[in-house]
Amino acid sequence: MTTVSTPRSFSRFRRKRRTPPGAPPGTLIPDPEAAAPVIRVMAYGPDALVEETIADVAALRPLLAAWPVVWVNVDGLGDIGVIQALGELFGLHRLALEDVVNLYQRAKVDDYGDYLFVITHMVALNPALQIEQMSLFLGPNYVLTFQHLPGDSLEPVRARLRGGNTHLRRGGAGYLAYAILDAVLDGYFPVLEALGERLEGLEALITADPNPAVRTRIHDLRQDLLALRRAVWPQRDALNSLLREPTSLLTAETRVYLRDTYDHSYQIIDLVETYRELAADLTDLYLSSISNRMNEIMKVLTIISTIFIPLSFIAGVYGMNFDTSWPLNMPELLWPFGYLWALGLMAGVAGLMLLYFWRRRWL
Amino acid sequence: MTTVSTPRSFSRFRRKRRTPPGAPPGTLIPDPEAAAPVIRVMAYGPDALVEETIADVAALRPLLAAWPVVWVNVDGLGDIGVIQALGELFGLHRLALEDVVNLYQRAKVDDYGDYLFVITHMVALNPALQIEQMSLFLGPNYVLTFQHLPGDSLEPVRARLRGGNTHLRRGGAGYLAYAILDAVLDGYFPVLEALGERLEGLEALITADPNPAVRTRIHDLRQDLLALRRAVWPQRDALNSLLREPTSLLTAETRVYLRDTYDHSYQIIDLVETYRELAADLTDLYLSSISNRMNEIMKVLTIISTIFIPLSFIAGVYGMNFDTSWPLNMPELLWPFGYLWALGLMAGVAGLMLLYFWRRRWL
Amino acid sequence: MTTVSTPRSFSRFRRKRRTPPGAPPGTLIPDPEAAAPVIRVMAYGPDALVEETIADVAALRPLLAAWPVVWVNVDGLGDIGVIQALGELFGLHRLALEDVVNLYQRAKVDDYGDYLFVITHMVALNPALQIEQMSLFLGPNYVLTFQHLPGDSLEPVRARLRGGNTHLRRGGAGYLAYAILDAVLDGYFPVLEALGERLEGLEALITADPNPAVRTRIHDLRQDLLALRRAVWPQRDALNSLLREPTSLLTAETRVYLRDTYDHSYQIIDLVETYRELAADLTDLYLSSISNRMNEIMKVLTIISTIFIPLSFIAGVYGMNFDTSWPLNMPELLWPFGYLWALGLMAGVAGLMLLYFWRRRWL
Amino acid sequence: MTTVSTPRSFSRFRRKRRTPPGAPPGTLIPDPEAAAPVIRVMAYGPDALVEETIADVAALRPLLAAWPVVWVNVDGLGDIGVIQALGELFGLHRLALEDVVNLYQRAKVDDYGDYLFVITHMVALNPALQIEQMSLFLGPNYVLTFQHLPGDSLEPVRARLRGGNTHLRRGGAGYLAYAILDAVLDGYFPVLEALGERLEGLEALITADPNPAVRTRIHDLRQDLLALRRAVWPQRDALNSLLREPTSLLTAETRVYLRDTYDHSYQIIDLVETYRELAADLTDLYLSSISNRMNEIMKVLTIISTIFIPLSFIAGVYGMNFDTSWPLNMPELLWPFGYLWALGLMAGVAGLMLLYFWRRRWL
Amino acid sequence: MTTVSTPRSFSRFRRKRRTPPGAPPGTLIPDPEAAAPVIRVMAYGPDALVEETIADVAALRPLLAAWPVVWVNVDGLGDIGVIQALGELFGLHRLALEDVVNLYQRAKVDDYGDYLFVITHMVALNPALQIEQMSLFLGPNYVLTFQHLPGDSLEPVRARLRGGNTHLRRGGAGYLAYAILDAVLDGYFPVLEALGERLEGLEALITADPNPAVRTRIHDLRQDLLALRRAVWPQRDALNSLLREPTSLLTAETRVYLRDTYDHSYQIIDLVETYRELAADLTDLYLSSISNRMNEIMKVLTIISTIFIPLSFIAGVYGMNFDTSWPLNMPELLWPFGYLWALGLMAGVAGLMLLYFWRRRWL
Repeated sequence: MTTVSTPRSFSRFRRKRRTPPGAPPGTLIPDPEAAAPVIRVMAYGPDALVEETIADVAALRPLLAAWPVVWVNVDGLGDIGVIQALGELFGLHRLALEDVVNLYQRAKVDDYGDYLFVITHMVALNPALQIEQMSLFLGPNYVLTFQHLPGDSLEPVRARLRGGNTHLRRGGAGYLAYAILDAVLDGYFPVLEALGERLEGLEALITADPNPAVRTRIHDLRQDLLALRRAVWPQRDALNSLLREPTSLLTAETRVYLRDTYDHSYQIIDLVETYRELAADLTDLYLSSISNRMNEIMKVLTIISTIFIPLSFIAGVYGMNFDTSWPLNMPELLWPFGYLWALGLMAGVAGLMLLYFWRRRWL
Repeated sequence: MTTVSTPRSFSRFRRKRRTPPGAPPGTLIPDPEAAAPVIRVMAYGPDALVEETIADVAALRPLLAAWPVVWVNVDGLGDIGVIQALGELFGLHRLALEDVVNLYQRAKVDDYGDYLFVITHMVALNPALQIEQMSLFLGPNYVLTFQHLPGDSLEPVRARLRGGNTHLRRGGAGYLAYAILDAVLDGYFPVLEALGERLEGLEALITADPNPAVRTRIHDLRQDLLALRRAVWPQRDALNSLLREPTSLLTAETRVYLRDTYDHSYQIIDLVETYRELAADLTDLYLSSISNRMNEIMKVLTIISTIFIPLSFIAGVYGMNFDTSWPLNMPELLWPFGYLWALGLMAGVAGLMLLYFWRRRWL
Repeated sequence: MTTVSTPRSFSRFRRKRRTPPGAPPGTLIPDPEAAAPVIRVMAYGPDALVEETIADVAALRPLLAAWPVVWVNVDGLGDIGVIQALGELFGLHRLALEDVVNLYQRAKVDDYGDYLFVITHMVALNPALQIEQMSLFLGPNYVLTFQHLPGDSLEPVRARLRGGNTHLRRGGAGYLAYAILDAVLDGYFPVLEALGERLEGLEALITADPNPAVRTRIHDLRQDLLALRRAVWPQRDALNSLLREPTSLLTAETRVYLRDTYDHSYQIIDLVETYRELAADLTDLYLSSISNRMNEIMKVLTIISTIFIPLSFIAGVYGMNFDTSWPLNMPELLWPFGYLWALGLMAGVAGLMLLYFWRRRWL
Repeated sequence: MTTVSTPRSFSRFRRKRRTPPGAPPGTLIPDPEAAAPVIRVMAYGPDALVEETIADVAALRPLLAAWPVVWVNVDGLGDIGVIQALGELFGLHRLALEDVVNLYQRAKVDDYGDYLFVITHMVALNPALQIEQMSLFLGPNYVLTFQHLPGDSLEPVRARLRGGNTHLRRGGAGYLAYAILDAVLDGYFPVLEALGERLEGLEALITADPNPAVRTRIHDLRQDLLALRRAVWPQRDALNSLLREPTSLLTAETRVYLRDTYDHSYQIIDLVETYRELAADLTDLYLSSISNRMNEIMKVLTIISTIFIPLSFIAGVYGMNFDTSWPLNMPELLWPFGYLWALGLMAGVAGLMLLYFWRRRWL
Repeated sequence: MTTVSTPRSFSRFRRKRRTPPGAPPGTLIPDPEAAAPVIRVMAYGPDALVEETIADVAALRPLLAAWPVVWVNVDGLGDIGVIQALGELFGLHRLALEDVVNLYQRAKVDDYGDYLFVITHMVALNPALQIEQMSLFLGPNYVLTFQHLPGDSLEPVRARLRGGNTHLRRGGAGYLAYAILDAVLDGYFPVLEALGERLEGLEALITADPNPAVRTRIHDLRQDLLALRRAVWPQRDALNSLLREPTSLLTAETRVYLRDTYDHSYQIIDLVETYRELAADLTDLYLSSISNRMNEIMKVLTIISTIFIPLSFIAGVYGMNFDTSWPLNMPELLWPFGYLWALGLMAGVAGLMLLYFWRRRWL
């Protein structure tokens, strides 16, 4: 008997809105399970950089005054007070803050005049596919990012910032925002490579031994691809509207780089769609392998039965009890070689049937 | 034998237009089963609020003159006279009134100059999915809403109105209309969560015990999702056209909030479409589970038959009546251990077949 | 044996163009089976109305001169002379006249400057779905309609015209054209309701007794829906282009009403598409019911065989003819209770198999 | 054994480009199998017409000088020299000439300033579907058409030209081009009618006797429809761009006529798409008929086996050789009516089974 | 037992980005397996041409100064230094250089002001489908192309350059870029012809002998077509945007030629899509052939069993051991012609069954 276990397949698509329906817009409801926020700040100019973890939002004020660009990254959304304090400090709209806290937003770009609000999604495999919402505010001299899970795709950006007088250190807040978004999208490639390897592995498995566990794994992979697709299409649209947003926060040069990021989002979509087609093919292949196998089995079994049924009939005939004292009643029974005749008859019938089946390529 | 009971599945899609074909536009035909209207009024300014249930439409006149914003909510469409009186009082177009009474309209926004006419749909699970049309008129100082079923998604809005000098109390009729539409859309989230839980439950059931009742429930769920989809897509379009409607009834600030509601409609569509894909997957999974199970059964049964048929043949051979006085006619019958030989032969044949089947992984 | 009879299913989609390929544009070829035209005229102003059936087209001239609006309705396209005479009287383009006679046009609106030419389709169930092309010319003071079958959806419009000083009587030719188009679209709703009832009936039938006749009826219903879909989508486009046609033949007020008709076309499309999805579901449900049923049958039959085959084997064993004078050759045959032993063995084997099948939930 | 023969099904889609990859644009490579060109000229004005077949392109010069409109039709593309001479005479771009020779172009309209270049496709059934590219150049006073196969859809146009002082004779080159394009599209209708008849015939066949030859014919028909679809969609686009081409070669009146042709292309697409849906339905119907039939057969066969297997078991029981001298060992064998008892038992078992099967509607 | 081997089917879709996620834009990471670059230069004017392979990028400077047009083709991307030197010499943006090295880009056109950057894909069959990215920079007097594999579709262009004072030699860098792009697209036609032949061959194979190896080959072909589709759609878009790019690098005349190339890309898409539909048909045909065949086999086997089971029953009846001394107990056993009667009965039953099966067309 087949047992199919899909412990996590559908739950990944569940979306829990914490804000109760009909609550005033901007109501911030903390997730009781959310981690306490850790605020990491990187403030830099072309020549210098300070990096610190702060406990109090007020500590940002002197940094903002002193440095050309300040990047504030908040890890963990468990303390609404901190988020509200940041909102007040940077003058952020309460609708945007609500979107920061209510996860599972679509990727989007909202232009609030003084600042841009961007929602994007980071992906990781550890080992299940994990999609994490990142909210980003881009102001004239700051970038403010919110994440709800530990770990992110942004370490390379931090390393480049620390690395000295680079393009990134000279580039302003807009360029930093670009670098972050680019790193987020770059994070899709290793995930897609891993999924591609899974696809190949499953293809090999289907060939070797198609069993229901393979089906579960295809099912799982397809849902990962569906989740990725849902994540990446809106990002492409968001990047496109970012490219065309008539805001002074992004310089013409930064837009050239953003166009490159936009191209990457297109490549990711291409890959996801291709993988989805391949995964659909895989399901077909699996089903046809299974049905092939079952047909094979039933064919062989039926051929065995079909050969023995006429033989049993012959045995049945010579098991009849007609009175052999009448000369026409089963004289074979009295022949000296009657048994051999019967066995030979059986062998002959079986042989003819095998020949017929072989001729018709049923064997 | 399987019995599939789908008592309510299709009837939910039936649409009965009461207006006879070709009737003059604006003909109001009451639904004989509709409840008598209950008119609840909330009139408020930033500092005060009165809330009453009125019996006569004329009682609205002084309220409209006295208060900055008046929200008139009509529950039950059973009395055409009341609807016409409201139409006259507010100067509403007869086509709009016809749409109020003829349920099953698509969501839409019509700009009649002095007022906007919006059709939207509220959803609820009690316990079957119920989609209720709500018609809303937004004038300079009033909001007029019509519903045909008791109960709605708007209690949170009323609670916020009662709650004192809030943003909502200061916000004007346009902001109240936004708050109502937002509450309507927020009402989709708990419904979708419940459907998501059903999806997960069905997935677990398919794994554990795929029976036709599961199929009926999937079928039912898919039709709920289809109904939701039909309801929510036009609402997104309506919200989009509302956002871009060049009317003075909505301030720039209210439009920012409406954009948020529009984002919510997008999220709902996203969820509905994802759930639809998952439900389609579920159907496939169910069918493949069923066919898997049936294949298993047929395979085992066929293997049993296939093993016994050659054994029966051997028994048949030794049941033949050849004259054993001839030395070549079935000498086994006269052997002292002939019976054991025959039983051993049978055991051997059965064992070889089992070995063969096991080798080919058919067992 | 199954017999599937689909006498009319495909023929409804056949389109016979009478104009030979390459004929000059505007060639009018009468349908030999078309009925002779009956010309019914309703001429009216706000205060009075005359209604007559005329034999000669020339009789229209005084009516056109005397009355604010004249509605000429031609039933039956069997006399090309009459159509040409009307074409000359109203100055109609020969391409438009060709479209009047060549049925199976797509719905469309052509603006010829002095007049608009509209093609629309009326539907009826009597009892098969019948789709009838109606051609309508709207001039400054006349509406000219052509139909090829007796009976139409326009009786309510005529009744409203006769009914006295109504909005319709005061509304001009453009408003009459709107009323006619609205009545045509209103005629879809009862047809759709009837198809919806058929859908529900078929759903119940599939549950109760899935037989091939049900399949034929689903097939038929799906083709009706396909035909409706092909009819109604172009009408929506035609109404949309009519709404935006920069012609003085339609007043701003009439356009408001036409927008309502356009909304109706949208609702009809919505319903048709929903019904199409439901009908597709129905086919799936039918196929899965049938296959379920067949699986049930085969399972039961195979279980019966599988139980009896080992029993027959036991009987076969005790039917062997080994010489029982040897003590080891089938001593059971000589036991006093040998027969009971054999029957008990059979009962035991059958019982164990039933138990096994029951345990695995195959029964 | 089933044999499916599809001799021509796929080859129709093969496209052989004769121009080698990377050749200079405008390289004209003759098809070695192409027929020698036959140049037929019709030169006319309102009052007169000459029609001749010329051997030398130079003979066109005086005709072009003398007549208002000259239509040069080239049948057969076997002589590159003739095509180049025509290209020089009319000043045609070498890219356009390359498209004339390289068949299997998409339909399109290219505006070269002095002349328009149109590619369209004629269809015919003789008896297989044949799609022939026609290239048309429209200049101020000439129309130049190239075809590669004998026979075309244009005879009616020629007949109308010969027929005297018609609209066509007075209409100029643009109107002639319209008449030709209209005749090409009109040629689709008889082909579609024939395919529609085939569809109906196949539907009847499936009902009467679903055999694999029917499947092959459906397969063939679907590919014809696919080929038609590929041919006609680009023509609609080409006609649309022709309608909107800002060229003086087409008068406003001719554009009105072209709009009619455009409507025809829409009707053809509608029919093709409808037929494609019907043909897809047909495949489903065929598959379900076949599987129905096979299920019927297997069911009947299995029922026969299932009834006889218990009967054989009873016979087997009474064929056992227990020593009947013991009173409990098969006393039935010694009963005077033992045989009748056994036969009665068998009849009873068979009867009960038949009753059971009949009750469950398996018969 | 079936073995399906798909060694290379999915791996072709794997995309390995060498640039680590989050690296600075423009980071060039060499592929450790890439070949060392070979730089071939063709510098020409209308009257002369030099062709050389250079080792040092600096050798390009005098050529660029001396000749009207210089085409630099780099084969092999193994040396980042060379690519960077070229980037500096021509002033290329580092994002474009990154795209050159990171293969598996979508086809696109980026306008960098002084030069255009085009990514396109060449195809070849050797014998597996190989898709190779080619990057092309078009400046005022140079074309710079990068390829990573040996061999390309451009030899005909080189031959035409060498061939003397042709259009190409006089045409400028823009015309050369057109010629290269045209040659790239022309390279698709032979590949598509070969795939078309494979399609036809597979169709014939399915008819003759549908075995699982055919399925693998269809699967393979479909993935080749999917890969081609993914390659060619973006090229069409890129060509379209190239046509409309407001750059002075392309003359009006060159744009006319590019429009022709654009038409070719459309034809290729048409063919690919048609082939994809045919390949999908092929899968259906294969599955239905297989299932047809299996049904045939099962039907014949079941018919054989069904005929012999009643015969065995008759033999079983006459094998019963009723005491024939009672006159009603199997008197047939004592008949002189009892055996013949039994054989005749069997023959009669078998004959009737065959007749019945034949009548119902089951044979």
